[in-house]
Amino acid sequence: MEQVSFPPLSRVAICGGTHGNEMTGVYVVREMKKKKVDKVGCVSVMTVLSNPEAVNVCRRYMETDLNRCFPDALLSAPLTASSPHEMKRAHELNALLGPKGSPQAVNLLCDIHNTTANMGICFIFYRFDWIALHLFKYVQSKTSFGPVRAIQFDTPLSEAYSLESVAKHGFALEVGPQPTGVVRADIYNMVTETLDLIMEWLEQFNSGSVFEGGEVEAFRKTQSLDYPRDPTTDEITAAIHPQLQDKDFKLLRAGDPIFWPFTGEAVKYEGEEAYPFFVNECAYYEKKVAFHLARKISISLPSISVKKN
Amino acid sequence: MEQVSFPPLSRVAICGGTHGNEMTGVYVVREMKKKKVDKVGCVSVMTVLSNPEAVNVCRRYMETDLNRCFPDALLSAPLTASSPHEMKRAHELNALLGPKGSPQAVNLLCDIHNTTANMGICFIFYRFDWIALHLFKYVQSKTSFGPVRAIQFDTPLSEAYSLESVAKHGFALEVGPQPTGVVRADIYNMVTETLDLIMEWLEQFNSGSVFEGGEVEAFRKTQSLDYPRDPTTDEITAAIHPQLQDKDFKLLRAGDPIFWPFTGEAVKYEGEEAYPFFVNECAYYEKKVAFHLARKISISLPSISVKKN
Repeated sequence: MEQVSFPPLSRVAICGGTHGNEMTGVYVVREMKKKKVDKVGCVSVMTVLSNPEAVNVCRRYMETDLNRCFPDALLSAPLTASSPHEMKRAHELNALLGPKGSPQAVNLLCDIHNTTANMGICFIFYRFDWIALHLFKYVQSKTSFGPVRAIQFDTPLSEAYSLESVAKHGFALEVGPQPTGVVRADIYNMVTETLDLIMEWLEQFNSGSVFEGGEVEAFRKTQSLDYPRDPTTDEITAAIHPQLQDKDFKLLRAGDPIFWPFTGEAVKYEGEEAYPFFVNECAYYEKKVAFHLARKISISLPSISVKKN
Repeated sequence: MEQVSFPPLSRVAICGGTHGNEMTGVYVVREMKKKKVDKVGCVSVMTVLSNPEAVNVCRRYMETDLNRCFPDALLSAPLTASSPHEMKRAHELNALLGPKGSPQAVNLLCDIHNTTANMGICFIFYRFDWIALHLFKYVQSKTSFGPVRAIQFDTPLSEAYSLESVAKHGFALEVGPQPTGVVRADIYNMVTETLDLIMEWLEQFNSGSVFEGGEVEAFRKTQSLDYPRDPTTDEITAAIHPQLQDKDFKLLRAGDPIFWPFTGEAVKYEGEEAYPFFVNECAYYEKKVAFHLARKISISLPSISVKKN
């Protein structure tokens, strides 16, 4: 197994409130700010409330989804007076935490999100990233709570649209189930424990520890399924079937019921075996899909260590 | 035990979307409209989407809480161009379903709400109402699902601020846990089964059946507890304690932990034994309380029947 080395990870950003009604990150960041957390060991920590205006009104966003504003094409386009609030904020965040792809970008960015789906705690990656995957492996092996999972979306960095893409390394921490606008102590505790483990790992990494490689299991997104809709009005005509509701990451087989129409018979799954996630993670008005499907993949991690000067 | 008779209950309104992000009522009403339900037996049924503008943007309300717009003082005050959207809508609904306190008002109004709290299905009353309490007793004895509860708030009819107060008889059907913006099939099914039982009871009542009285148990609200807050910023400084989260209607005793501060020690309950409800039913931005407390009461229902002409 190869060994890979990286420069020290000296600047870290912890972000919350990228979606203004996902409350765990909002409260975690507020509490870190109150405690004036700006350094853990030799790691400098920035805490960022990504979209304070949306947080103030407890909405996902004001004009457009901030977490879709970070592809290169949007960050390089000039702002105008009529640019949406979130596009302006994306430029500010890119200046503060990036610029994306530049040597000045923070070393690691963790963006805290919540979902109403029964997903537990998930690291979401948009690219293979040995640092982020080692952090996932470490957290997975150390937490006091249930399964910790990793989900990989395949997106080239230039097209990556989410906040963490401005950093050199990064991931979204997606935690649920939690309704929007609500703080649950159990979810809050899972996140703070995870952040403590991340800081612990960073200190060990920066001080020269070698982290052994090995296989980690992740879920790679393969497709998305939309709700059944009325072809003329586009209105949703079925709920998630009770047998699928809350069954994120439970194997789905052909013939299993997936939709429960308000009138008529259950809709069954027709496809290859797959793992559903973000099941019914629905702001219905967002025209979100009903759920995503993934297959399990195994990733061979190299050993990693800090690059000596 | 006395026997009471009432005129036939010939006009019924089923309302949803009074809060635009509580989705069960929105979908129940939409489906009833699609099926053109306007009569069940000899009962005429109106289906009303109370706040379509708020439903369209999946928010609780646009300018002010519609379900606080129905006290006499507000309904009798003249509208102006600058009246909030919901106040204008309240006047429309009062004209359609009331006027409140008049002989023209619909006989029965059921307003469907959701909560993120683990409350199951609850009938909420703002006054003693033999019709509504008999409906509760009937539904409670017939449903295929878990406990059905009744909650009583003490409010004189003239001050009653909620939509159902415009009808001669009425109640809110409060069902959870369900995140805002989400439809769960299990919750949807509980509500449609409840509505079917209500229609069944109304047909029997109107056709001359006598419903025996007896004791029913209800919860009467005694007080509300707010979250601990920062005295200068008013920000919430504690979550609901994990031991209280999801424990709606479980007896709370002095010394039980109720709040879990983000820093510091658990806050314990100091007070008489009581039953918490609406626990963490929090749109945090709404400045809602953390939970309400109730005591159990026993209500002696008279037998009831339809008044013969």
